[in-house]
Amino acid sequence: MAATTMHQGPKGTRDFYPEDMALRRHIEAAWRHASVIHGFDEIDGPTFEHLSLYTVKSGEGIVNELFSFRRAGGEDDYALRPEFTPTLARMVAARAGGMAMPIKWFAIPSHFRAERPQRGRLREFIQWNVDMVGIDGAQADVDVLSTAVSALGHLGLAPSDVRVRLSHRGVVGAALAALGATAERLGEAFTLLDRREKLDPKEFDARALAIGLREGAAARFAELARTKLPVTSDAHAISSAIGCNREAAQPLADIAARLNDAGLGAWCDIDLGIVRGLAYYTGTVFEIHEATGAERAIAGGGRYDRLIELFGGPSLPAIGFGMGDVVLGLVLKDRGKLPASGGCEFLPRPDAFLISAGPESADAMLTTVAASLRGRGLHVRHTYKATRSVGKLLGEAGKCRARHAVILGAELEQGMVALKALDSGEQRLVSLDALAQELGARA
Amino acid sequence: MAATTMHQGPKGTRDFYPEDMALRRHIEAAWRHASVIHGFDEIDGPTFEHLSLYTVKSGEGIVNELFSFRRAGGEDDYALRPEFTPTLARMVAARAGGMAMPIKWFAIPSHFRAERPQRGRLREFIQWNVDMVGIDGAQADVDVLSTAVSALGHLGLAPSDVRVRLSHRGVVGAALAALGATAERLGEAFTLLDRREKLDPKEFDARALAIGLREGAAARFAELARTKLPVTSDAHAISSAIGCNREAAQPLADIAARLNDAGLGAWCDIDLGIVRGLAYYTGTVFEIHEATGAERAIAGGGRYDRLIELFGGPSLPAIGFGMGDVVLGLVLKDRGKLPASGGCEFLPRPDAFLISAGPESADAMLTTVAASLRGRGLHVRHTYKATRSVGKLLGEAGKCRARHAVILGAELEQGMVALKALDSGEQRLVSLDALAQELGARA
Repeated sequence: MAATTMHQGPKGTRDFYPEDMALRRHIEAAWRHASVIHGFDEIDGPTFEHLSLYTVKSGEGIVNELFSFRRAGGEDDYALRPEFTPTLARMVAARAGGMAMPIKWFAIPSHFRAERPQRGRLREFIQWNVDMVGIDGAQADVDVLSTAVSALGHLGLAPSDVRVRLSHRGVVGAALAALGATAERLGEAFTLLDRREKLDPKEFDARALAIGLREGAAARFAELARTKLPVTSDAHAISSAIGCNREAAQPLADIAARLNDAGLGAWCDIDLGIVRGLAYYTGTVFEIHEATGAERAIAGGGRYDRLIELFGGPSLPAIGFGMGDVVLGLVLKDRGKLPASGGCEFLPRPDAFLISAGPESADAMLTTVAASLRGRGLHVRHTYKATRSVGKLLGEAGKCRARHAVILGAELEQGMVALKALDSGEQRLVSLDALAQELGARA
Repeated sequence: MAATTMHQGPKGTRDFYPEDMALRRHIEAAWRHASVIHGFDEIDGPTFEHLSLYTVKSGEGIVNELFSFRRAGGEDDYALRPEFTPTLARMVAARAGGMAMPIKWFAIPSHFRAERPQRGRLREFIQWNVDMVGIDGAQADVDVLSTAVSALGHLGLAPSDVRVRLSHRGVVGAALAALGATAERLGEAFTLLDRREKLDPKEFDARALAIGLREGAAARFAELARTKLPVTSDAHAISSAIGCNREAAQPLADIAARLNDAGLGAWCDIDLGIVRGLAYYTGTVFEIHEATGAERAIAGGGRYDRLIELFGGPSLPAIGFGMGDVVLGLVLKDRGKLPASGGCEFLPRPDAFLISAGPESADAMLTTVAASLRGRGLHVRHTYKATRSVGKLLGEAGKCRARHAVILGAELEQGMVALKALDSGEQRLVSLDALAQELGARA
C-alpha cells in the first residue's frame, strides 16, 4: 500500500484545474447560450456505445481509431464515443414516430479518438453538436449556421477573426457532372476534390479520367476547388462562376440570400473547395476557419439527409455541425480573445469574504453569518488560517477576487459589521439584518 | 451500407432526451450553485485513467468492477473512471507545492462501474464530488457537509425528507478499543461493524473474539452500531452513550456544535452505525439517506487524511464526499419534489415565438427580426411549418411554453408588431425598435 509513485494522466487527455475549467465553462456557456436562444434543446447519450454503432456509418476502417473494450465476462463490444452523430441518429430513430418535427437538439459531451495527439487534436476533447432533424430548406440551414456564428460572436470573435466557408454538394455535383463525371461515380469525384492537395498531379489526372472527367477537365476541376464567391452572389453569378446551370445553383443562392437576411453575410464566403470528407453529406456543407487559415477547422458540418434512415429510423432530412473545444481554444488565444490572466478571470467572484476580528468568543458568529448569507444565495468565503490580522485577511480577500470584505468586529455587539467594497475601497457599517441585501441578495 | 437494424444504447447507460436532460441540469445546477457559494472551484479530469491509478487505493480486486481497455497497438492499460478521488489525489499531488491551502474543489463528471445494473445503480452515472484538501478540523468538515445539505435544500428537500447520518472513526475506534479491540486489528473491527448485518451471528461472534473483543462484547458492539444521538449532544453525552472517554468523543462533539452554529442541526443525526466500507477514511464519516431509509445512500463521504500521500503527494489532510444523480433522482421523485410534467418544466422558456401573418413578401423579416432579438440575448422560436394560421401558430407557441408571441402582420409597414403575453393573453402593438426591450432584453 505504500506507493509513492507520481501518477500522470493518459497521453492526449487533460486535467482541468480551476483556471482551465473556468475557461472551458466560458466556452461551454457560449455554446449553450447560442443553442438555447436559437431554440435547440440539450440532450446527451452514453459515453460509450456498442462498437457496431460506429461501423454502420464509417465501416470497419474506423475501429482502429476507437478506444474499444469489453466488460470482464461480457460479450458485447463497446467503444468510447468518437463523434455524436451515431448516438443522435439512434436516439432519433428510437422515438421518431412520437416526436414533433423538426427536432432541434444540441449536446456538449466528451469525445475520444485513439489517434496520435497533435496540435488541435487530442485523445479526449469536448465537442458541441447542433442538429436539426426532419426539415429541409434554407431556413433550417441558416438557423444552424446562425447558432454556430452566434456562439463565436459571444466569445468575442468577429468576421475579421473567423470565416464560415460555405458550399453545397448538389451545386458542386452539378459542376462536376458538367465536367463529365458520371452520376454513379460522383462520390469518387467528391473524394478526389477533397483530396486534391494530397495527390500527385499525375495520379490526380489518371483518377480524374477514370471517373469520366473529360481530358483537360482536371484543370477546371482544380479551378472549381479554388473558387470563392461573395455570399451576396445570386444563382446567376454562382452558375456562371462554376459552370453549372442556374437551377442547380439555386439552393446555394437561397441559403446565401437568407444568410444576408439574418445579418450573417459578413461572416461567410462561398468556397467551392469545401467538400467535407465524409460520404454522408448530401447538400449544404460548411467549415469555420480562423480568418488567415491558421489552425485546423474550428467547426464543420452540413446536411445529411439519408443518415437517420441508415440507423434504422424513418427517412428524415437533417443538418448539423460539430465544434470542438481544442481548436477553438487555440483560435481564441491566437486572436487575443482570452484575458491575459487566463481562465482565472472567468472564475466566479465571491460576493463576500468574511473576516473575524472581534473577540474569539464571537468566532462562531462567522459560521452563522456565512450560513445565513449562503442561504440567500450569496457566494461567501473566509479564511481557514489562524491569523487575525485584518490586513493579511484583506489581502486574501483580494486574492480570491471577492467583491466585498465583511469584518465582524467589536460592533457585532450592536448587531453591526463593517462592509468594505474591495474594488472602490469604500467602507461603512451596516446592520447584520441588512447585510444580505447590501451584498446584492435577491429578496 | 443498407443497414436497417434498430440500435440500442449499452445496458446500464442512459439516453438523455430533452426532458431527461433538463432534469439532469436541474440537479447539476443545484450542485454547482451549492459548490460555488461555499467557495469551491470546479475542476475535471480525463474520463479514463491509467488502470494502475485505481489499484493504488483499492487493490487488484477492483479490476473486475472496471471497464478497462488498451489502445489498438498501445501498451498502456486504461480504465473508465469509477470514482473521482484517485484523479483528484493525482491532480493535487502533481501541483501540491504551488497551491494555496486549503484546496477547495468540486467536479461533476460521469463515472462508470461494470456491475450488474439495478435500482439506483447504473453502469454510467453522474456524480458530484466535493473535496477540501490541506485542512483539518471541524470548520472544514462542516463546510463540506453544509455544501451537500445546501444542494439538497435547493432541490426542495427538507430535514423531513433526508437525513445526514454522522459518525467519526476516531470516536468509534475509541469505543471499539474500550471493548477490547487491539490497535493493530482496529481496521478489522471497523469492517466487522460495517458488515454486521450481512454476517451470521455465530460467525460475527467468532470474528469479534478473534480481533480481541472481550466475550459478550459482541452485544455491546451491535448496540454501538445501533446508537443514534441527537446532534445537540456534547462530548459528555457522546462518551457516556458509547463508552469511550470524553477526550476521545470531543472531535465529534466539536463538529456537532459547529453544525448547529451553521443552522444544520435539524438535518443531522449522530449515527455510530455509519462506518463507510472503504479503509481509507480516518475521521469524520457520513452518509445522507432518504428519511425513512428508502433507496441506497444519496451521498457518502468523510475524512481521508492519508490518501494524497498514497498517490505520491505530500501528507495532507482532506475531506470530501460523492453524491450520484441516480439515487438522488429517485429520492426527489419519491418525495414529490419533481413537477408532475417531469423534466419539461425545467426546459428554458422561449422569450418570444415569432409568427409571420402578413404578406409572404415580408417573410424574410421574420429571419431578420429573429436574428436581431437573438443578438440581444433573447430566446426566440418560430414555426417551420407551412401554415399561416395564427390560431394554429399560437398553439405551437403555447406548446413550447413561450412567454410571448410576436405577430408580424400588416402593421409591419408602420414598423409595428403585435406582442401577445401568452400567460395573461394580453395583446398590444409595439414598435419593432422597442420589441427587444419589451421582451426583457438587457440594454
